[in-house]
Amino acid sequence: MGVTDSADDPLVIAGEALGSRLIMGTGGAPSLTGLEAALRESGTELTTVALRRVQAGGEGSIWELLQRNRIRALPNTAGCFTAADAVLTAKLGREACATDWVKLEVIADDVSLLPDPVELVSAARTLVDDGFTVLPYTNDDPILARKLADAGCAAVMPLGAPIGTGLGILNPRNIAAIVDDATVPVILDAGVGTASDAATAMELGCDGVLLATAVTRAGDPVRMARAMRAAVSAGRDARLAGRIPRREEALASSPADGRVNLDLAL
Amino acid sequence: MGVTDSADDPLVIAGEALGSRLIMGTGGAPSLTGLEAALRESGTELTTVALRRVQAGGEGSIWELLQRNRIRALPNTAGCFTAADAVLTAKLGREACATDWVKLEVIADDVSLLPDPVELVSAARTLVDDGFTVLPYTNDDPILARKLADAGCAAVMPLGAPIGTGLGILNPRNIAAIVDDATVPVILDAGVGTASDAATAMELGCDGVLLATAVTRAGDPVRMARAMRAAVSAGRDARLAGRIPRREEALASSPADGRVNLDLAL
Amino acid sequence: MGVTDSADDPLVIAGEALGSRLIMGTGGAPSLTGLEAALRESGTELTTVALRRVQAGGEGSIWELLQRNRIRALPNTAGCFTAADAVLTAKLGREACATDWVKLEVIADDVSLLPDPVELVSAARTLVDDGFTVLPYTNDDPILARKLADAGCAAVMPLGAPIGTGLGILNPRNIAAIVDDATVPVILDAGVGTASDAATAMELGCDGVLLATAVTRAGDPVRMARAMRAAVSAGRDARLAGRIPRREEALASSPADGRVNLDLAL
Amino acid sequence: MGVTDSADDPLVIAGEALGSRLIMGTGGAPSLTGLEAALRESGTELTTVALRRVQAGGEGSIWELLQRNRIRALPNTAGCFTAADAVLTAKLGREACATDWVKLEVIADDVSLLPDPVELVSAARTLVDDGFTVLPYTNDDPILARKLADAGCAAVMPLGAPIGTGLGILNPRNIAAIVDDATVPVILDAGVGTASDAATAMELGCDGVLLATAVTRAGDPVRMARAMRAAVSAGRDARLAGRIPRREEALASSPADGRVNLDLAL
Repeated sequence: MGVTDSADDPLVIAGEALGSRLIMGTGGAPSLTGLEAALRESGTELTTVALRRVQAGGEGSIWELLQRNRIRALPNTAGCFTAADAVLTAKLGREACATDWVKLEVIADDVSLLPDPVELVSAARTLVDDGFTVLPYTNDDPILARKLADAGCAAVMPLGAPIGTGLGILNPRNIAAIVDDATVPVILDAGVGTASDAATAMELGCDGVLLATAVTRAGDPVRMARAMRAAVSAGRDARLAGRIPRREEALASSPADGRVNLDLAL
Repeated sequence: MGVTDSADDPLVIAGEALGSRLIMGTGGAPSLTGLEAALRESGTELTTVALRRVQAGGEGSIWELLQRNRIRALPNTAGCFTAADAVLTAKLGREACATDWVKLEVIADDVSLLPDPVELVSAARTLVDDGFTVLPYTNDDPILARKLADAGCAAVMPLGAPIGTGLGILNPRNIAAIVDDATVPVILDAGVGTASDAATAMELGCDGVLLATAVTRAGDPVRMARAMRAAVSAGRDARLAGRIPRREEALASSPADGRVNLDLAL
Repeated sequence: MGVTDSADDPLVIAGEALGSRLIMGTGGAPSLTGLEAALRESGTELTTVALRRVQAGGEGSIWELLQRNRIRALPNTAGCFTAADAVLTAKLGREACATDWVKLEVIADDVSLLPDPVELVSAARTLVDDGFTVLPYTNDDPILARKLADAGCAAVMPLGAPIGTGLGILNPRNIAAIVDDATVPVILDAGVGTASDAATAMELGCDGVLLATAVTRAGDPVRMARAMRAAVSAGRDARLAGRIPRREEALASSPADGRVNLDLAL
Repeated sequence: MGVTDSADDPLVIAGEALGSRLIMGTGGAPSLTGLEAALRESGTELTTVALRRVQAGGEGSIWELLQRNRIRALPNTAGCFTAADAVLTAKLGREACATDWVKLEVIADDVSLLPDPVELVSAARTLVDDGFTVLPYTNDDPILARKLADAGCAAVMPLGAPIGTGLGILNPRNIAAIVDDATVPVILDAGVGTASDAATAMELGCDGVLLATAVTRAGDPVRMARAMRAAVSAGRDARLAGRIPRREEALASSPADGRVNLDLAL
């Protein structure tokens, strides 16, 4: 109690309802056992996997782990630098995972790990045409997000900060602008370092949060998974509850009221 | 599940254990009925009340509401501008509430609602000498917090931002410095506007969060109370789990590894 | 004295040296007389003009004003939404201004005024092939900036914040990343609201700053022009001087030294 | 030209006009020769000195250096932890420097170097009563600043960040609140790391800036001194010119105007 998992408030992507707004990645986990405990604690129902890992299937594999926990696998195109590469990898992922959902990543280089905006749009168009349900990892440019939605992507997944930095959301106005403009769900992807980052993403109006190393590389991944689950729930509730406005001036009691209302000063 | 209320991780003040790290205020609530629902949803076990309200006891009063929900009342000295006033008000509160705990407020004026540092220390010393368990509302000055702890206060309660502004934590380094230096629990008091602010306070190492209008004046106070409960839990778990370090550079996969680890890019 | 205009430290774009690192725009000026005074005070040697204004040449025109003050005109493609439009406008500007320099703008819509990354790269390639010296207005995406430089642009001009907002530099890390990666000059374009924003851009390593409404719509445009001139100079000097590192801890004197060094506490 | 030193806009403290709004400190300078060049470049007319250094007078001393450059010496009470210590040190400084001006510092400990608010007010009152012109170094608490002004101090000098950190202004709202409330000049003291920090202080309405290590420990102290001089001037001009408002939305041209006004997009 205290956390409403999204049973009554599902995240709907491409017509399918997910009972958790927290999407997990698997990178950075030192062991499958630890990963499994963290994924279970997170409550996630959708988890990204790199193709190579999926292909290494069989008992004791990530694939088997996800099946066992009834977590849907979302194959990604990590490590692809061109639209052509990403399209090919997506197709292999579709075969391996028997799903037409794909997390589309087309990065510009392996130092910045930032998306290549031109190749990304090109790959998205090709994959949509080929019947994929495309969830692209993008930078935080509102215009690029719009182009991806216009291209038929099922969601847009802007970064808060570069992958693995844990810097949170560097430009909240861009995330808010993407949300305001969005015709599809917006998932914050990359940058989350701690629980308040995930809550902030939801408060800005994101429909979900995708993270990996913030949990897998935390000191105690299971406890951090629990923190992230609660944070996503907290941020979602805060968004829907309607926060008080930010005020430049303190909210003083009315002098005429004597001290009656002064306890709004707590 | 999902949220660990603090049953196994209580907030201990002056030797007494509280099962929730969220302390609530009652100001700003439009009705007692709405306030009761929000307080219940918040899970709080300690709630501040202004003396005037306590004195207006009897059925249908805040006092009765707190009794009914087994929430401990923390009388405050809201509206006091001098040490002498605050000491007198604290004594009246002790009579009315039959508790020697007091939230000590000595504000400099009723526009800024900021604490008066000199009067505050003076009042704290007097009340400690008189046997009170003193929880002072203070600005975010680490030296003032130290003086209050040295004076025998049972906790220190620095502001994140001026009362009622909802601006969050304007100077996180000061809060972190207070925590690092603290010999007593640190409760963030004032400034919280939304859930991520509460989570951030806990991530900075605060032992608890005190808030009122962020819940009572939210669009949906009950839902915001739930958000705050989850946020405090998320922030506490994140602090204890140990977050990943902030990195200026993206955490790139090693080229030598092929794509094996690339999925840490999610 | 006090300000070194860039006589000994010119801004070199496409092999040509400019004696000021402040590039001005003309939009928002209520009168030509006021504009002229502000441009002169700013010390600028390069100023953008929209084609329509240039075409309305003759005595009393912006064109004549710039000629008279020996300020080079930089025609822009403001108001263009597609690569084709921008290319056509650039060609008209080349005719009208007898220069192959062009500030390339391809915006996605007239509400956000944000650049369209795909159309922008396309237009840049076409114009470079056609012999233009292209200075593109871009968002703050390091990858897009790299693509524009790779396409042969003579500079890249990322925004600090959306046009006309005066919000400063919303994501300093992106500007720093663009600078670190750059093979051509980087000019901060859009977002500057006040002097410290311009100084910050230069401290981040930008080679110049382009602004218009921060001066033309200021209460006193001439005084603000002077402020911007000094701020660009200050930021440039600070960058080259090498600032002290940011430290989390106060720099305390060594106790062993007695008070001898304590005056580093000022 | 370019920079208006404050000849027509002096900083007036206790009835005396200073031609520069930049007050320098001498701590951290590796040599007197380098210090002299930096002080000259800065244009300062008032410079703090620690008593020990003043006492070590004679040829080649800081004292002689300031005399030679007609820079007024402002003795400080660095290294004092109690009001009594500070008062004694101030009196020795008055003797040594033949001035009743004093920069009052009473720090709580030699790690944080933060002011002790209670001892500070006490020392200020004593020194004012004894005829000193008191310029107290204080934290950024608006109430403490008010108390110091009410005690008869000739200026208040809040920190932007702890001494030597170079973190800039951690809580701009507090500095703005001190300015709004002030009946005496406000000088930002401590925290400045680079030029934009100094400009920001002036834009917030400070009347001057005091800094030392940002110049003396910079890679090129003379160039940084020049940067700071220009930055203070830029910030002052920007404040007086009246900046454009911050806007959440881009300032788009009116569609009805065709492209005529589009060049406000630069």
